Amino acid sequence: MMKTAILLAPGFEEAEAIITIDFLRRLDIEVDILACQDDLKVVSYHNIPMFADHSLSSVQTTLYDAIILPGGPAGSVNLAANPQVLAFIRRHDAAQRLVCPLCSAGARVLGAHNLLRGRRYVCSGDLYQQVADGIYVDKPVVEDGNLISGKGLGVAFEFAAAIAYRLTGNKEKIDFQLSHIYYKEDQPAA
Amino acid sequence: MMKTAILLAPGFEEAEAIITIDFLRRLDIEVDILACQDDLKVVSYHNIPMFADHSLSSVQTTLYDAIILPGGPAGSVNLAANPQVLAFIRRHDAAQRLVCPLCSAGARVLGAHNLLRGRRYVCSGDLYQQVADGIYVDKPVVEDGNLISGKGLGVAFEFAAAIAYRLTGNKEKIDFQLSHIYYKEDQPAA
Repeated sequence: MMKTAILLAPGFEEAEAIITIDFLRRLDIEVDILACQDDLKVVSYHNIPMFADHSLSSVQTTLYDAIILPGGPAGSVNLAANPQVLAFIRRHDAAQRLVCPLCSAGARVLGAHNLLRGRRYVCSGDLYQQVADGIYVDKPVVEDGNLISGKGLGVAFEFAAAIAYRLTGNKEKIDFQLSHIYYKEDQPAA
Repeated sequence: MMKTAILLAPGFEEAEAIITIDFLRRLDIEVDILACQDDLKVVSYHNIPMFADHSLSSVQTTLYDAIILPGGPAGSVNLAANPQVLAFIRRHDAAQRLVCPLCSAGARVLGAHNLLRGRRYVCSGDLYQQVADGIYVDKPVVEDGNLISGKGLGVAFEFAAAIAYRLTGNKEKIDFQLSHIYYKEDQPAA
């Protein structure tokens, strides 16, 4: 079974995290929710306390198939300020495992620390203007090698689906699940 | 400030709940997260423990402007089996406050207890076949008077936006927020 990790720091964008966890778990992809602090109770951007499965420091030797970094104004700043998070990303990137930032994480966590390494990526807003490393591409989800980035909250389902596809290759199962949850039904409200 | 409540029972669909909370809080609409059990720590459909703000039993005299019921296979069954939840819905419906079920909650919680009262609604899957009360309408979001129902997880942003619009009437602010989070960007993945 494919095994992924999502990194939660105080102020993480809760819906970006939860949509991704929910969608991957629906597809039987394992997700470890990791707290980037000692306390497993991490408080989100809009003030919801959630419990992580493990602390990041307890999985320093585990190699995941994909690691996911949600945004959130303070969340991505807190991820970027944590040397353990940067080491975790470098270790997975060196092993060619999927590195998947969403929203501000692409610029603030990877871009600010030369972790994009010249690859194509997307992030939210105009944060790309502060990034010298990497080529900004204005699309909902951008893939370049083992880097999968997403623009923001509103594209979180596409972001999760892209990660799932790279992990399983099972387009039929992913499309079934997107349809099952009624994603992108286009009729106006009654 | 408009004040809403979202009801969490064990097995609640976490992304349906969190998307709605997140979107409403972004629009400065107050959301009380209520645990429909004594313990404020409620475990979601895909096994994420979250902390509610209050227990449902502690707000038996509070009248909210809107009450929101997420789905989840076990979540909606647990809501429907809780007499306190049914009394809470009846009290708000009688006061013409917004009653907002998502996914299976429309059929399982309201439909199974004659709380649709002949109104138009939507719910997930074929659950409507077991509902004698109410008129099923196959659209992402259906409004009939003070009842706002949504079909499922993939339309949770539209559902939240419909609730926000009924509470604030501020289409400009809601559209700005939908655009700000890049909702419904249609470009394919790079």
